[in-house]
Amino acid sequence: MGLSDWRGREIPAPSFDLCDAVKARLDRLTKPPGSLGRLERLAVELAAAVGEERPQVRPAGVLVMAADHGVVRAGVSAYPSEVTAQMVRNFLRGGAAVNVLARLVGAEVWVVDVGVAADLREAEESGAPEGSGAAFRIRKVRPGTADMTAGPAMSREEAEAAIQVGWEAASEMIDAGVRLLVTGEMGIGNTTASAAVAAAFTGLPEADLVGTGSGVDPVRRQKKLQAVRTALEVNRPNPADPVDVLAKVGGLEIAGLAGAVLACASRRIPVLMDGYISTAAALAAVHLDPAAVPYLFASHRSVEPGHDRILRWLGKEPLFDLDLRLGEGTGGVLAIPFVEAAVRILSDMATFEEAGVSDARR
Amino acid sequence: MGLSDWRGREIPAPSFDLCDAVKARLDRLTKPPGSLGRLERLAVELAAAVGEERPQVRPAGVLVMAADHGVVRAGVSAYPSEVTAQMVRNFLRGGAAVNVLARLVGAEVWVVDVGVAADLREAEESGAPEGSGAAFRIRKVRPGTADMTAGPAMSREEAEAAIQVGWEAASEMIDAGVRLLVTGEMGIGNTTASAAVAAAFTGLPEADLVGTGSGVDPVRRQKKLQAVRTALEVNRPNPADPVDVLAKVGGLEIAGLAGAVLACASRRIPVLMDGYISTAAALAAVHLDPAAVPYLFASHRSVEPGHDRILRWLGKEPLFDLDLRLGEGTGGVLAIPFVEAAVRILSDMATFEEAGVSDARR
Repeated sequence: MGLSDWRGREIPAPSFDLCDAVKARLDRLTKPPGSLGRLERLAVELAAAVGEERPQVRPAGVLVMAADHGVVRAGVSAYPSEVTAQMVRNFLRGGAAVNVLARLVGAEVWVVDVGVAADLREAEESGAPEGSGAAFRIRKVRPGTADMTAGPAMSREEAEAAIQVGWEAASEMIDAGVRLLVTGEMGIGNTTASAAVAAAFTGLPEADLVGTGSGVDPVRRQKKLQAVRTALEVNRPNPADPVDVLAKVGGLEIAGLAGAVLACASRRIPVLMDGYISTAAALAAVHLDPAAVPYLFASHRSVEPGHDRILRWLGKEPLFDLDLRLGEGTGGVLAIPFVEAAVRILSDMATFEEAGVSDARR
Repeated sequence: MGLSDWRGREIPAPSFDLCDAVKARLDRLTKPPGSLGRLERLAVELAAAVGEERPQVRPAGVLVMAADHGVVRAGVSAYPSEVTAQMVRNFLRGGAAVNVLARLVGAEVWVVDVGVAADLREAEESGAPEGSGAAFRIRKVRPGTADMTAGPAMSREEAEAAIQVGWEAASEMIDAGVRLLVTGEMGIGNTTASAAVAAAFTGLPEADLVGTGSGVDPVRRQKKLQAVRTALEVNRPNPADPVDVLAKVGGLEIAGLAGAVLACASRRIPVLMDGYISTAAALAAVHLDPAAVPYLFASHRSVEPGHDRILRWLGKEPLFDLDLRLGEGTGGVLAIPFVEAAVRILSDMATFEEAGVSDARR
């Protein structure tokens, strides 16, 4: 069991001392040394993070944190805020992309309402139907943020409470056995908040961090860019104070996922980041505690131009690029087989000696 | 059941008329239109190839064709020829990378000896152990090719016989239910033969097509390059006569996989290509019959520089790049979850109407 509060966390250092042994084993397996490329490097990184020469990453779970954004009033999204709650109900019926992909790869879906601007208690009471594979928790800190272009998105206390919600949700998943956690989200307007968070932490130009989100036209993208600039000017978030950034220009699900990252890192559970929002949350987490960095793994590079920027900032190389821009955790879930492949190679392949194969390179 | 001889094949045209309906369905699913990127394009291509609005790709199988290469005598490989037979035995015991990855993604492994320079009958008689998931067939056309730097690698009749072996192996897999076939191979020296085949068909400079294979040093790579140039000069393969190319500078497993591609295309079964050798075999197949092109799908881009060249020549975009250079079908097997994801999205996701989600884009 983990600690009950994110503020008391202690994130252990990875077991870098295992790397040599893992590399040596990889070179004794029946394949040319290094021929499994990124999978071999991933195996070494996972072993160091988990602290085992043959790490386990099953069961895997995806934590989908959902919340609404007051900035949607500024006309930044192609969809109305109501879609956030509608999609949460879709997750609970198992009909969304993240459900389909999670069933495919055998991952559990956990959905947490940390700030949806609708009452979802009926969905909680009815429970997820059999076979949807989704668990649901309502841990609403507030029903959506305020419009960050007119003032702080939320109070400092609310941001801290949202971090705590994510910490507790991830802790519950880990207590239930999860050994690899994908961070996913749902929140109409949240690429706008992610761009503001990324700009506040990295100092990169806003124009490099604002994309087309769920698919907005150039006029609306310009509105997004203006909203991000206004939010930063109005609120002046302090990058040295990550809670201040999350409170002023963040989102409840972004803060929540930052807390989830901290919980995983504290328990040495690898976190598979999804797209822009999920990675912006990880950026916040490593500002809260840089010791979380080695527990973060990139899955894909999304269409959002800011995603690649912050992945580079974090020093994380994605495993693939499928031009995804959906969120929910979909890209992270798709990467689970690659992560599992890396650890299975380590545990299941025969060595040259075992297989009687000549490794006498000429 | 398919035809019994590759020469009598008829490859149907894909059902391009289904594309509009499939695209329309993808746009009704609960996600922003196009937000699943490459997976959506893949779903459309698979539907057209298979000829179904909701194509099936399970069960999936990997066909590993194994053979030896006389050109190894020219010092082109880091490993001795004996490793080909040793690795076949490793496949049958389930200890190789392709076995581990195939078990992970739930694919069957079929191994065919089309020209290994060793007697593998004891392995055939003992049978694959329970749980290895590998079937084995000995269909040896000849025990390895001749050294192509001194004359043709094999006769025209032998090349045709090897194509037939691959045709029959793939046909047997399809008859057994396989709905997605990964082309894999084992053959020490076969990147050298693949480079010669690729140069003969594409006319690209040999230096762009010769890489480091299983991991040779620059001196040995220079020997490979020289061997490819000598083989092409000595044999003068005719690119307008694909059997001539395969016979003079190809390999038994390369010809076999070309036959497997033709069998799949004839039965509208998608082929997931692996790396350089597998893709060189597909290049031969489309020279034998250009109608096979729409049934080919690229999995990954390997470290071999020639792989990217011939993928571009085929007009096929890989799904990922993990710096793999192992072969056996490993990259193709790793792509199976992506292919399955594409078809599951189409069949399993809820539409906006079904889920009660607003698709009123503003």
